[in-house]
Amino acid sequence: MTRIPSSIPRTDGFYMPPEWAPHARTWMLWPERPDNWRLDAGPAQKAFAAVADAISQLEPLTMCATPKQYRNARAMLPQSVRVVELPANDAWMRDCGPTFVVNGKGDVRLVDWQFNAWGGLYTDWSLDEIVPQKVAELEGVDYYRAPLILEGGSIHVDGEGTLLTTEECLLNENRNPGLTRDQIESYLRDYTRAEKVLWLGAGVYNDETSGHVDNIACFLRPGLVALTWTDDRNDPQYPISKDACDRLGKFTDAKGRGLNVLRIHQPDPILITFEEAAGVLPVEGTYPRETGGRMAASYINFYICNGGIVMPIFDDPHDRLAMDALQKAMPDRKVIGVPAREILLGGGNIHCITQQQPKGCFS
Amino acid sequence: MTRIPSSIPRTDGFYMPPEWAPHARTWMLWPERPDNWRLDAGPAQKAFAAVADAISQLEPLTMCATPKQYRNARAMLPQSVRVVELPANDAWMRDCGPTFVVNGKGDVRLVDWQFNAWGGLYTDWSLDEIVPQKVAELEGVDYYRAPLILEGGSIHVDGEGTLLTTEECLLNENRNPGLTRDQIESYLRDYTRAEKVLWLGAGVYNDETSGHVDNIACFLRPGLVALTWTDDRNDPQYPISKDACDRLGKFTDAKGRGLNVLRIHQPDPILITFEEAAGVLPVEGTYPRETGGRMAASYINFYICNGGIVMPIFDDPHDRLAMDALQKAMPDRKVIGVPAREILLGGGNIHCITQQQPKGCFS
Repeated sequence: MTRIPSSIPRTDGFYMPPEWAPHARTWMLWPERPDNWRLDAGPAQKAFAAVADAISQLEPLTMCATPKQYRNARAMLPQSVRVVELPANDAWMRDCGPTFVVNGKGDVRLVDWQFNAWGGLYTDWSLDEIVPQKVAELEGVDYYRAPLILEGGSIHVDGEGTLLTTEECLLNENRNPGLTRDQIESYLRDYTRAEKVLWLGAGVYNDETSGHVDNIACFLRPGLVALTWTDDRNDPQYPISKDACDRLGKFTDAKGRGLNVLRIHQPDPILITFEEAAGVLPVEGTYPRETGGRMAASYINFYICNGGIVMPIFDDPHDRLAMDALQKAMPDRKVIGVPAREILLGGGNIHCITQQQPKGCFS
Repeated sequence: MTRIPSSIPRTDGFYMPPEWAPHARTWMLWPERPDNWRLDAGPAQKAFAAVADAISQLEPLTMCATPKQYRNARAMLPQSVRVVELPANDAWMRDCGPTFVVNGKGDVRLVDWQFNAWGGLYTDWSLDEIVPQKVAELEGVDYYRAPLILEGGSIHVDGEGTLLTTEECLLNENRNPGLTRDQIESYLRDYTRAEKVLWLGAGVYNDETSGHVDNIACFLRPGLVALTWTDDRNDPQYPISKDACDRLGKFTDAKGRGLNVLRIHQPDPILITFEEAAGVLPVEGTYPRETGGRMAASYINFYICNGGIVMPIFDDPHDRLAMDALQKAMPDRKVIGVPAREILLGGGNIHCITQQQPKGCFS
């Protein structure tokens, strides 16, 4: 768990594997803060527990909780889930957590990106900021400190040199205002060993992360990208998805391949109800949840784990279509739908609350 | 990290190895509570850090701290020490922590004894009580719940079937008042796989643990016991050590051997100074520290780790004699003295603040 101060993953031969590479375990954080999770986080905890339950049937899972919530988390989770005390400001392990890198020779390290709470969505991120170092301690792995503000949800890789991201997020003034697109690409190459960065425009409509890629599009394998979609030309998501689709159609990846696109139709618009908004404790300096607000619902925010895909569903007629489409595209993994409205209400979804730790050896 | 509900180590082929068996790591807790550690635990933290530093040069070490103290502990400890958040009520990993057991086939489990804060020395032990379960989670090992109130410091084993303890502690009304000596021996056999229990009488004079064996005597190897000693017949420790020496001279161990005794002369009496007592925050329900109180100082409270022995020293003329005597008896391990008055002031010493996790395989 030593910080590697004068080196970068690229020159050390380490790279970020794709999400479908075999995992050693999944990391999650337990939701708690009442100013983001309604009713003292009770409904969210049930939803997170269901996600953890699904994943833990496929691979080991560590749930990090505050000491205050330790016993509650322990009681609500299957015995096979490892519960550890590792307090954070909120529960988005994808974003405040580490990005693991491997060298293909059995060694695992991690990248500790800079973090500023998605450009300052809340005022205190002092605990979130050091989650990667604590994970490094727990696992006994060395870590790199990257000089770039970046959340894990803002990048996807295909494992063959291609990285997918969005301009709305990574070029946003609220992230790395002093850096040019070229400088950001250079850091991405240094710390993930991507060779080519593909830029989508915006993320999902009303996505409070400034358009994380992991809610709009992801690789299913090299050469195949899943994209959230709507056929409703009057929906504000339409031009966003249309633009993404057009760009994807023109890209070539690091290997020179064109990309196929699997469009997955979004659920019908999901609005925050009065009861939902009223259950969230309003606190100054926290992103508000207001009645009637459109939530950034997307099926793309799923998590690929060993032998399975855990996908958010919303009690919506499109649920089945999305699951079937993904199952057809990924026949070797079981697609598992988990009701996720309570996670969505907190500002993200299943991919946002998980982070994979790859195995050092894939064979 | 599953609780093994309907079985015991003995019938499963698991036993408690002796302290000198190879360790996978050492566990410690970081001192913090100002009602036991003077000056907001600052001096104690330095002493604990020195102990951790010495051990971590010989084997991996995990320091458990509260979230409040995490950054402080991290900053005060060598980088090679793993710091995790695992809050406890105080800092005595030997006593509230687990007893690891092995089966000689590579498997490691642990015993989670009942805990009542040394018969109720303080009023809240709700965190201490679940430390073993949390260690089991962190390490991913299964655990037994033993139906016996017992602290790790109250037993020593020789690894060949003999267990050493004291009547003052294990037969004390403040521990297991409903159990007879035979019943207690039976539980000790079940959970450590000892075959023979040897009973000393009392522990060190004024030892607030009700006479833990680990402050008065310990095995150095099968057949050899180190014993704290004084030549001063007027010292209240004299009759206690004399009685222990007499008993040890008459015992035979589980293998039928007589025991050799290495007497290690105690330091001159160490009394709590006014400044020391004044630095401890008086809180109702916590064991008081009073000016002039005789501390239970003993060199026996050392810790045997891979290739070394970390021994408390007290800036006393007997320090060198004790270190030399132990070094002579244990030529294969380096005896390292660490100033320990600040640990002693909290009510124990180096053995009390450490707990070994044996390797599954010794070869």
